[in-house]
Amino acid sequence: MRIDIITLHPELIKSPFEHSILKRAIDKNIVNVQFHNLRDYTTSKHRNVDDYQYGGGAGMVIAVEPVERCIAHLKSSTYYDEVIFTTPDGDNFNQKTANKLSICNNIIILCGHYKGIDQRVRDHLITKELSIGDYVISGGEMSAVVISDAVIRLLPGVLNDETSALTDSFQDGLLAPPVYTRPANYKGWKVPDILLSGDTPKISKWREKQALKKTKRLRPDLLFS
Amino acid sequence: MRIDIITLHPELIKSPFEHSILKRAIDKNIVNVQFHNLRDYTTSKHRNVDDYQYGGGAGMVIAVEPVERCIAHLKSSTYYDEVIFTTPDGDNFNQKTANKLSICNNIIILCGHYKGIDQRVRDHLITKELSIGDYVISGGEMSAVVISDAVIRLLPGVLNDETSALTDSFQDGLLAPPVYTRPANYKGWKVPDILLSGDTPKISKWREKQALKKTKRLRPDLLFS
Repeated sequence: MRIDIITLHPELIKSPFEHSILKRAIDKNIVNVQFHNLRDYTTSKHRNVDDYQYGGGAGMVIAVEPVERCIAHLKSSTYYDEVIFTTPDGDNFNQKTANKLSICNNIIILCGHYKGIDQRVRDHLITKELSIGDYVISGGEMSAVVISDAVIRLLPGVLNDETSALTDSFQDGLLAPPVYTRPANYKGWKVPDILLSGDTPKISKWREKQALKKTKRLRPDLLFS
Repeated sequence: MRIDIITLHPELIKSPFEHSILKRAIDKNIVNVQFHNLRDYTTSKHRNVDDYQYGGGAGMVIAVEPVERCIAHLKSSTYYDEVIFTTPDGDNFNQKTANKLSICNNIIILCGHYKGIDQRVRDHLITKELSIGDYVISGGEMSAVVISDAVIRLLPGVLNDETSALTDSFQDGLLAPPVYTRPANYKGWKVPDILLSGDTPKISKWREKQALKKTKRLRPDLLFS
């Protein structure tokens, strides 16, 4: 899989891809992540990519030209399944979307920044607008990392133990049950006896019940969706 | 404000804090962000912080000991308003929570990783569990960055133009209206005439209408919450 991330701040999102699971996926050539600096695609003398908004108001807007030129350049050599724009008013990114994106061959993620991006980019160049949650962050860079991470970890060969991803929260529509590790007693805080019993079928049942109870209490919406 | 981030991978989340708006906030001493490596708080010979889970199953679990020691160390010199744990089964992090956290003096954010964390940490040490969205990512590090970013940009003096944050999506319960910048015509893609009219009251009205229309179409749930 190939992910092309278009951003004003490539250096801002480098470290997440240089460590841990994402690094391993890149080192194993399971995914190829490329960063493209929007400033390299402007024809403006001062490498400006943003301007004041028409009609007045606070905040700068990313212009259509550098975005259009960058995407056209990428498309000239590659077919992209999706051109994603990260924005707080996009569709909610969830595990279902992550699963779908994980079977794409090539995707572009364009990171929003400043007040927003010229609407014409969204109308003509973007195939999918995604929001990682109902909050505003400084730019779409972190959203691009979150989306990439959620997708990359689903690619075969990325996780050391593939069954681990299958028992994550959301994959079966339930939140994960509580987990415990050694010691069995830490300053009086104890592990539930059942988990120390060695009775695998009983433990399975207990976990299912805990997952269901937890989901009912915290996220009943997941049970009926 | 002070934010202490406890993680297994401090190097993974360094770059987001070294650029753009977060860097400026730190340079201006508006916020003090400290990273704490969980491995520095283990008494194990091999600096192990994780172990197999009781009851069997795939994935490693972060042990209670290093977390308890790290938090105790931090609390010995500072009073914390919240000790946050980032986890997919936490409360949904949203703009309201960001606003609330932005008036805290000191917070700890503990990043989840691997299969999860020993439940006793969550039962005894955590005051708030937050999820940045309904998807699974490799670790809580990105969640910690997202939460920090959403909170830090609300602190007075961080944004260049403070009115900019107030007109963001979600702050007034509506998605932001479309924005445009120069040129007025790009390869036949045109800016709506109204925005070029200079008629400020009409433009305001148009924007309100657009914001409402967009919210009704994409996120009707925001209108009735």
